[in-house]
Amino acid sequence: MAPLPVSPLAPEGLPALPPVAGCRFSAVEAGVRYKGRRDVLLAEFVPGTTVAGVLTRNQMPGAPVDWCRAQLPAGRARGLVVNAGNANVFTGAHGRTACNETAAAAARLLGCPPSEIMLASTGVIGEPLPYERIVAALPGAQASLSDNSWADAARAIMTTDTFPKAASRTANIRGVPVRINGIAKGSGMIAPDMATMLSFVVTDAQVPADVLQTLLSRSTARTFNAITVDSDTSTSDTLLLFATGQVPHAAITGAGDPALRDFRAKLQDLLKDLALQVVRDGEGAQKLVEVTVTGAASERAARRIALAIADSPLVKTAIAGEDANWGRIVMAVGKSGQKADRDRLAVDIGGVVVARDGARVEGYDEAPVAAHMKGSEIAITVDVGVGRGRSTVWTCDLTHGYIDINADYRS
Amino acid sequence: MAPLPVSPLAPEGLPALPPVAGCRFSAVEAGVRYKGRRDVLLAEFVPGTTVAGVLTRNQMPGAPVDWCRAQLPAGRARGLVVNAGNANVFTGAHGRTACNETAAAAARLLGCPPSEIMLASTGVIGEPLPYERIVAALPGAQASLSDNSWADAARAIMTTDTFPKAASRTANIRGVPVRINGIAKGSGMIAPDMATMLSFVVTDAQVPADVLQTLLSRSTARTFNAITVDSDTSTSDTLLLFATGQVPHAAITGAGDPALRDFRAKLQDLLKDLALQVVRDGEGAQKLVEVTVTGAASERAARRIALAIADSPLVKTAIAGEDANWGRIVMAVGKSGQKADRDRLAVDIGGVVVARDGARVEGYDEAPVAAHMKGSEIAITVDVGVGRGRSTVWTCDLTHGYIDINADYRS
Repeated sequence: MAPLPVSPLAPEGLPALPPVAGCRFSAVEAGVRYKGRRDVLLAEFVPGTTVAGVLTRNQMPGAPVDWCRAQLPAGRARGLVVNAGNANVFTGAHGRTACNETAAAAARLLGCPPSEIMLASTGVIGEPLPYERIVAALPGAQASLSDNSWADAARAIMTTDTFPKAASRTANIRGVPVRINGIAKGSGMIAPDMATMLSFVVTDAQVPADVLQTLLSRSTARTFNAITVDSDTSTSDTLLLFATGQVPHAAITGAGDPALRDFRAKLQDLLKDLALQVVRDGEGAQKLVEVTVTGAASERAARRIALAIADSPLVKTAIAGEDANWGRIVMAVGKSGQKADRDRLAVDIGGVVVARDGARVEGYDEAPVAAHMKGSEIAITVDVGVGRGRSTVWTCDLTHGYIDINADYRS
Repeated sequence: MAPLPVSPLAPEGLPALPPVAGCRFSAVEAGVRYKGRRDVLLAEFVPGTTVAGVLTRNQMPGAPVDWCRAQLPAGRARGLVVNAGNANVFTGAHGRTACNETAAAAARLLGCPPSEIMLASTGVIGEPLPYERIVAALPGAQASLSDNSWADAARAIMTTDTFPKAASRTANIRGVPVRINGIAKGSGMIAPDMATMLSFVVTDAQVPADVLQTLLSRSTARTFNAITVDSDTSTSDTLLLFATGQVPHAAITGAGDPALRDFRAKLQDLLKDLALQVVRDGEGAQKLVEVTVTGAASERAARRIALAIADSPLVKTAIAGEDANWGRIVMAVGKSGQKADRDRLAVDIGGVVVARDGARVEGYDEAPVAAHMKGSEIAITVDVGVGRGRSTVWTCDLTHGYIDINADYRS
């Protein structure tokens, strides 16, 4: 299969990614699956770095996910090894060996216990991971570690992504500026791989691991867990947040510490930025779609209704066809299983009132809505008329490109 | 949009549909939306006919669904009016008026209370139903009622179906043969309509309404409720079963009456036949897929896992690409949220063992599986290794045809 064209929704380019003190990266060619490109990423963190993580809820997780789940409670990290091309999923005992051997090799190089090495893999599933190639590539990777390799890192973890994904923010903790950088990959496909999503975020702030975990879990709900390309949950989804603690600032007392207000906001903003970059690279995506549901029984109910709309093949194909097909939106609300009042339902598209009180508005003029549908960013708002719960999720349209990418034979 | 080509999965033709005593049909042109084709169906049942129904669980049901839900508890039916082209969904007070007026007009013609007229509509949603055209067409329909119009009836309820769907069985109740005929429509699409599913089944047996309802509800779980084309639940799904009682046989004492054993089996077989015809006409379908899950915690859990596989866009596109992509099947099991043991998981495709105990089998030979994937009927079996629950569902692949049909502008 020829390389995919860059998504029409891609940002103009990678943002500037200044170094984050205490963190160095290296990307090397290990030939795990791809030829002629860097496919293994090594990261080194200074001693004392804390870590938090959010992992896939898919019940068939890959071996690296199991590995991270076992190590994360200790909250300490000195290294990270990521490979692209093979997800090390559904690989049984061999998969566990691959994790053990990779972590041991990295730990020897970085001078720490293997439990402080985080692991992630993305790519084809069910194939044994040739971890020897990774182990063999690590010494060379260590030799080229640099604090200026963020762009290389973003590229090394791509599989069939059509553009590298990164974001950077500066937050203020009691008057002291701290940096947060993040990279992500997802979700193109050329082989039989799932659209795995990986993201790694590093800050130079001093944040205890338990606080870091609370911040990350809260932010994820409205960022990475609020996006969907095709409703298929990967077996490898991994989001890790590292804090190197290299910037001196007043000690953090807990996740609710007022000193973290700006950090929390900037972290969530960065995660949302990365998450939307993943949707913008959704397989075959031509349009970015924001779905907001209000008036639901709870935030959870609102989120489920929003996802029912965002995952509906009929809604997504209508958007691909630039059809303001609000009838399909109504259908999706109704299939969600969540409480909603048909006779009070309201639908807006692109800010234009389409339906109120369970029926199309009198004298509905489709022209401004049709014009909105021709744009590359679509906004749908639905009020379901039963409560105060609200939620926003993001998705993309369902196009021939998705079929092209996914119905292809494995190479 | 040009007429769709007949599905490659269509049966060779309509089966023979002998009359069912006590039931007459007429199909006429009312011009509700389509021109030059019959689009309204009138059915008349003899006095004493019982009725049972299963209606959509979508919480945004159409007005005719509300109407049937209100009338079904009485269990009596003298007539049925169905129109194609407009679903009378999300139409507010006007939709209720349309139902009231249509039922009143049919009731006057057939000499019964309006509550004994069942109603169903399929087609575009959110547009007011021009019920006056239906009311005006009913006298002509009554004048041409015939017990030999089953094929016309099957055609009159089509929207973008590429072939009419019908089935007939003969069952034996204590030595007396009774007939069961059924028709169904679903699930093509040219406009913004949802893939609505309607089915009407008539028997000449004498079955009390409460028994009929029990038989229908039980059979639906393993037939119509075990199919999925695109996971989008229609706002109009309606399945009605009428019993005219015109064949004299020993009285039925209850749903568990041993005399009903053959009737139950034949009814379920007929419903499955009709349900599979709907999948065979799934939008863009090129392959019929049977997914069986065993070893689940319960039948309900097995069904959810099977539906997670059958609804996964990645599984369905892989099948379209004739790719034996069992990795995506594993992913779908894992995302279902149901209990499953990754390390005991087993996958068979086309009867060939692919994976056992959580990994691909040693020396796996893809050739026979690849050959199976090239056929038009695909069988997937997954054992999840935790219990004895089992379930089978049917779906079709996800192809460019689906995008073509659904991304099209509304005409």
